[in-house]
Amino acid sequence: MSSSFLHPDRLFPQDSHTRSIARDLFEQVTALPIISPHGHTDPEWFATNQPFQDATSLLLTPDHYVLRMLHSRGLSFDDLGVPRRDGGQVADGRSAWRLFASNYDLFLGTPSRLWLDHALNWGFGISEPLSADNADRTYDLINERLSDDALRPMAILDRAKVDCIATTEFALDPLKHHGALKEDGKIGRIRTTYRPDDVTDPDHPSFLANLTGLGELTDEDTFTWVGMINAHRKRRAFFRQHGATATDHGVPDAGTADLPETQKQPLLDRLIAGPITATDAQLFRAQMLTEMAGLSVEDGMVMQIHAGVRRGTDPVVLASHGPNLGADIPTRVSPAQGLEPLLQRYGHDKNFRLIFFCLDEAVFARELAPMAGYWPALHLGPPWWFHDSARGIARYLDSVVESAGFMNLAGFNDDTRALLSIPARHDVWRRCLCAFLAELTTQHVISKSEAEKLAIYLSSEAARATYRLPAKG
Amino acid sequence: MSSSFLHPDRLFPQDSHTRSIARDLFEQVTALPIISPHGHTDPEWFATNQPFQDATSLLLTPDHYVLRMLHSRGLSFDDLGVPRRDGGQVADGRSAWRLFASNYDLFLGTPSRLWLDHALNWGFGISEPLSADNADRTYDLINERLSDDALRPMAILDRAKVDCIATTEFALDPLKHHGALKEDGKIGRIRTTYRPDDVTDPDHPSFLANLTGLGELTDEDTFTWVGMINAHRKRRAFFRQHGATATDHGVPDAGTADLPETQKQPLLDRLIAGPITATDAQLFRAQMLTEMAGLSVEDGMVMQIHAGVRRGTDPVVLASHGPNLGADIPTRVSPAQGLEPLLQRYGHDKNFRLIFFCLDEAVFARELAPMAGYWPALHLGPPWWFHDSARGIARYLDSVVESAGFMNLAGFNDDTRALLSIPARHDVWRRCLCAFLAELTTQHVISKSEAEKLAIYLSSEAARATYRLPAKG
Amino acid sequence: MSSSFLHPDRLFPQDSHTRSIARDLFEQVTALPIISPHGHTDPEWFATNQPFQDATSLLLTPDHYVLRMLHSRGLSFDDLGVPRRDGGQVADGRSAWRLFASNYDLFLGTPSRLWLDHALNWGFGISEPLSADNADRTYDLINERLSDDALRPMAILDRAKVDCIATTEFALDPLKHHGALKEDGKIGRIRTTYRPDDVTDPDHPSFLANLTGLGELTDEDTFTWVGMINAHRKRRAFFRQHGATATDHGVPDAGTADLPETQKQPLLDRLIAGPITATDAQLFRAQMLTEMAGLSVEDGMVMQIHAGVRRGTDPVVLASHGPNLGADIPTRVSPAQGLEPLLQRYGHDKNFRLIFFCLDEAVFARELAPMAGYWPALHLGPPWWFHDSARGIARYLDSVVESAGFMNLAGFNDDTRALLSIPARHDVWRRCLCAFLAELTTQHVISKSEAEKLAIYLSSEAARATYRLPAKG
Repeated sequence: MSSSFLHPDRLFPQDSHTRSIARDLFEQVTALPIISPHGHTDPEWFATNQPFQDATSLLLTPDHYVLRMLHSRGLSFDDLGVPRRDGGQVADGRSAWRLFASNYDLFLGTPSRLWLDHALNWGFGISEPLSADNADRTYDLINERLSDDALRPMAILDRAKVDCIATTEFALDPLKHHGALKEDGKIGRIRTTYRPDDVTDPDHPSFLANLTGLGELTDEDTFTWVGMINAHRKRRAFFRQHGATATDHGVPDAGTADLPETQKQPLLDRLIAGPITATDAQLFRAQMLTEMAGLSVEDGMVMQIHAGVRRGTDPVVLASHGPNLGADIPTRVSPAQGLEPLLQRYGHDKNFRLIFFCLDEAVFARELAPMAGYWPALHLGPPWWFHDSARGIARYLDSVVESAGFMNLAGFNDDTRALLSIPARHDVWRRCLCAFLAELTTQHVISKSEAEKLAIYLSSEAARATYRLPAKG
Repeated sequence: MSSSFLHPDRLFPQDSHTRSIARDLFEQVTALPIISPHGHTDPEWFATNQPFQDATSLLLTPDHYVLRMLHSRGLSFDDLGVPRRDGGQVADGRSAWRLFASNYDLFLGTPSRLWLDHALNWGFGISEPLSADNADRTYDLINERLSDDALRPMAILDRAKVDCIATTEFALDPLKHHGALKEDGKIGRIRTTYRPDDVTDPDHPSFLANLTGLGELTDEDTFTWVGMINAHRKRRAFFRQHGATATDHGVPDAGTADLPETQKQPLLDRLIAGPITATDAQLFRAQMLTEMAGLSVEDGMVMQIHAGVRRGTDPVVLASHGPNLGADIPTRVSPAQGLEPLLQRYGHDKNFRLIFFCLDEAVFARELAPMAGYWPALHLGPPWWFHDSARGIARYLDSVVESAGFMNLAGFNDDTRALLSIPARHDVWRRCLCAFLAELTTQHVISKSEAEKLAIYLSSEAARATYRLPAKG
Repeated sequence: MSSSFLHPDRLFPQDSHTRSIARDLFEQVTALPIISPHGHTDPEWFATNQPFQDATSLLLTPDHYVLRMLHSRGLSFDDLGVPRRDGGQVADGRSAWRLFASNYDLFLGTPSRLWLDHALNWGFGISEPLSADNADRTYDLINERLSDDALRPMAILDRAKVDCIATTEFALDPLKHHGALKEDGKIGRIRTTYRPDDVTDPDHPSFLANLTGLGELTDEDTFTWVGMINAHRKRRAFFRQHGATATDHGVPDAGTADLPETQKQPLLDRLIAGPITATDAQLFRAQMLTEMAGLSVEDGMVMQIHAGVRRGTDPVVLASHGPNLGADIPTRVSPAQGLEPLLQRYGHDKNFRLIFFCLDEAVFARELAPMAGYWPALHLGPPWWFHDSARGIARYLDSVVESAGFMNLAGFNDDTRALLSIPARHDVWRRCLCAFLAELTTQHVISKSEAEKLAIYLSSEAARATYRLPAKG
């Protein structure tokens, strides 16, 4: 076993005294239940509870972090077994796994490496890094174990102590699997999230068709502003019946608007008439964020905004293999200016809560922490995506705590598509959180008992409280 | 006493060897006199030297850092005893103090906590954190002590070893309290600062009235460019008679301009004629910065620019309770491009000195440190506002020293409205400075004797030298 | 000898255990050969191999880092012996050296201090910091030693174990010295780099004349798009004959374009007809980057982009003493959006490689590391210029490794004009690299043997591989 492979003190501070404090803190939080209030796991897994297929389709082909890195070194998505949109031939699972395993050193120093090591060990008892040498052996071992009941989706949730997990579905989604989960009494543990980007983003290729579909689903005239908002109102209620306590909104920037009533219908009319201008698309997205905030005031759903990603920057791969393969690149956001219309309208409302996420670290200390430390409605989402990593977490805590305090933080989100990365990601968050709190303790900024309380709160309870989840899922 | 409450080693490095160096350095600087060349204390305190009223009006209601955090967790400004603009009823001092004390844990990890602990201990001998349990006891204790002569404003300055403190007044201010201080022979220790935003910012609601007032005060025709500049010249002289060695300019961005003479009067004419456009307002502010630099070349006053804050982002609270309650949010600035016209005109002038402050940390390493390491006139202001904190100071020193060196730094400003936070803030700066210098010493980048000289210089003397204050106030 | 003067453990981590790991790693890399694939040394030095003149012209007047800092404290370029453009009198070498030496403390905490100490010790055996006291002694000592054969340019390369060094020449450069080096069989060890900014930047004062010159040199009609590209093709081949494996492009921002063929000639025609608009100048630079990428696909030359510097912000000094005296200030760049057209066209091409450099640290974690971790063609250049420093390197590695991995990094560039700073700069990089890897080892993110492999690779081999240099220069 490699001396660094999942060492019990991994990610703890270098200084031995501080490290021992971190270890003490971590012991108190490592076994706490996992609250996973935002993510992209597939509800079918939980509804059908069928075994996963094989190592490659479980661990490699759905993991855009891993695929992007292999692609960056010249490996082709075909050779990595990623399905082609044209149905053409790609490598079989074993070949793809061999390629992955023999390039495993590319992940040194990256969060993928920590997550994968953890998943391989946690799920399959593997205790050495993947390599060309063990590729076939690990492939066979994983495939064999996958038929164990203990590795079915619900058993994984049990063993990982996942009290509650939220998936994310678009506004038109029939929530078929959540319907089945509801019949099984599993809503509460498994929940959906209302993400209406399919009908709020005029740049969506099927925007108008989707808007029409929304009208049909809800028996509303969604070509009128009032009907459209009412349709959202109904879909939100439907999603709440399937466990949703939150909405989520993916937007290219942090812009919001608060238009006078008289300008809303004309904006919608222009979009319907087409052609859709960039200005109107932006304005509609901005206005819809404020509309969604208004509906949150009504129905109490927690609003999430994930802002600032340039999606699909590689049209060739988008055409050949689809989205979510690593070509989404973060960009600059301006939340102080952008969120102002929304916050001025609803930022004091006790029923409103907004959790904001972005990938522009420059705004954490400059804008977001001061804002979260002022507006009652605003909480800061944890480090997202590329920054959900040891150093990303360290930079985040360094940047936000002094101005936002600890209690305006939303705890942790794993935000993952990879089921087995859930315990791994929460493990990393808890370790890095304990490291940060241990440093504050060594520096006598907080006492050890204060550090313990904060470690416990931010490991698990903060997410439950922030997302208004009931005390037990 | 909580083990973390004002521990003598607080904020020092984790590594024990480095910590002992930091402790040695700090021993050499902890008792040095305080130079406070920029801040917002009330000159009336020093002119009348009357006792402070009570705990709440001393420590809670004037502290926008504290109020904002309590507000962010849903507490109302009314319940916190913040006076309403409409004179309506708000909580009495004791009720407000109880609310504050029982929410004291919200400040864990924030600079407010360090400053408050320090002030409570330094001023009143309190040696435990505030809490619901001790709220009444501490309230009574503080109120009782406030009648001691040792807690009158001038006695506080004496005990804190404040050699010199500058307040900040607008251009039209009659400097009544500084006049009284002058008669008492206290100018030199107490000084004013010329901050003409009331007559240089066309977005000020009373801009034109103020400009008229400036003309009346100075017997100049301030509707002509020449007269307006001459009026500033006279007011600067008046402020210098009341101790001012510096001017200060609060601007939304770092833009400066250097217009040809022929365009100045037409710009002023357009502002007077109205309506004032955003472009002209911005251009006037930009040009006035360069005009002020020109006057600094003439009269030797040190020029400060505080750039990049979006003020009053919460109009509801602005209307109900006024400004400075936490809704001012930092934004991006572009000093490389913005300051170029001003620096190209005056950046080499030996009589000119500009100290620049902003809250956009992204420009420290990228723009400001390279600029300060080139232009003779430019010095870097210390970490400001949200960044006047342990981690803010660490990030600042990490970002600027390598490109700007130590000698282009302006030392420390407490920039506070809270008298009792002055010793606390200088204590934090000195600790963090010593921590940084100790790390450089452990890493053999500088020797311990070099670290000592730098610690001593940057704790006190740098501010005096940068602001051209005489050797003894 | 000052206790901090070139301490063998300098720049290593504070924690003693981690420091000992860093020391072990450093022992493995300190003697590795230096690959210097990008820089600005003078090829005449290597072609003629004449001794350097004196201490001042070797160490002071060509070093813009040093000159800028002295200038920032009010010293004049005349007094520092910097030649005037008008041929006017400036201080002699000894006077300038005295001024420099007596202000040596200004460099405390800056990379210049580390580089200078290293160069003084490495080249001349000096073992104390410069000072007013030793100014004359060190000046005489250096001048005396400069006549030793061991301090001729080629001997310096030998002793510093520089396997390969690339200079940088503009497109019209006749490569006279490289021609001489070629006859001497030294191409391979000394190489040129193709930097065609003189004919690709319409804001260059001699742009049209240069374009005409390019046509004459290549026998192409460079006023036609096809002819102009063909002229580049020929010059690139000529540069390759003189060792070039790479091109370099200095641009004010990261913008690229991919115009339809029909728009290219009209763009060129507008530039030739003049007056040149800012929009056309920007568009031409943007398009030419993509054209150069296309030529790299053809000929395999590695493309470098250095983006985001505001050049010559001090026109007074530019007029009196010329460029490269410290008034070049970094600015913001937007690589995600800017590089998109180029990467969408060539980012997957196996023959194409792009190394990107900028000075806007905010984009490292946000944009560049995610991009380098996706696009096969894109590698990240090391910390450049102001960020080629202990803390700059630490921030760089902290920001990029988790998303880009180690294998998408281009190793190290010294990028220097100062020959004696080459071993110093590689020493600093290697120390800081080992410090980072030691920290990852202590935190059990990587094993010590993995750290060793990475330290060895990134100290030397990574640069060779990334720049497609043959195994032995």
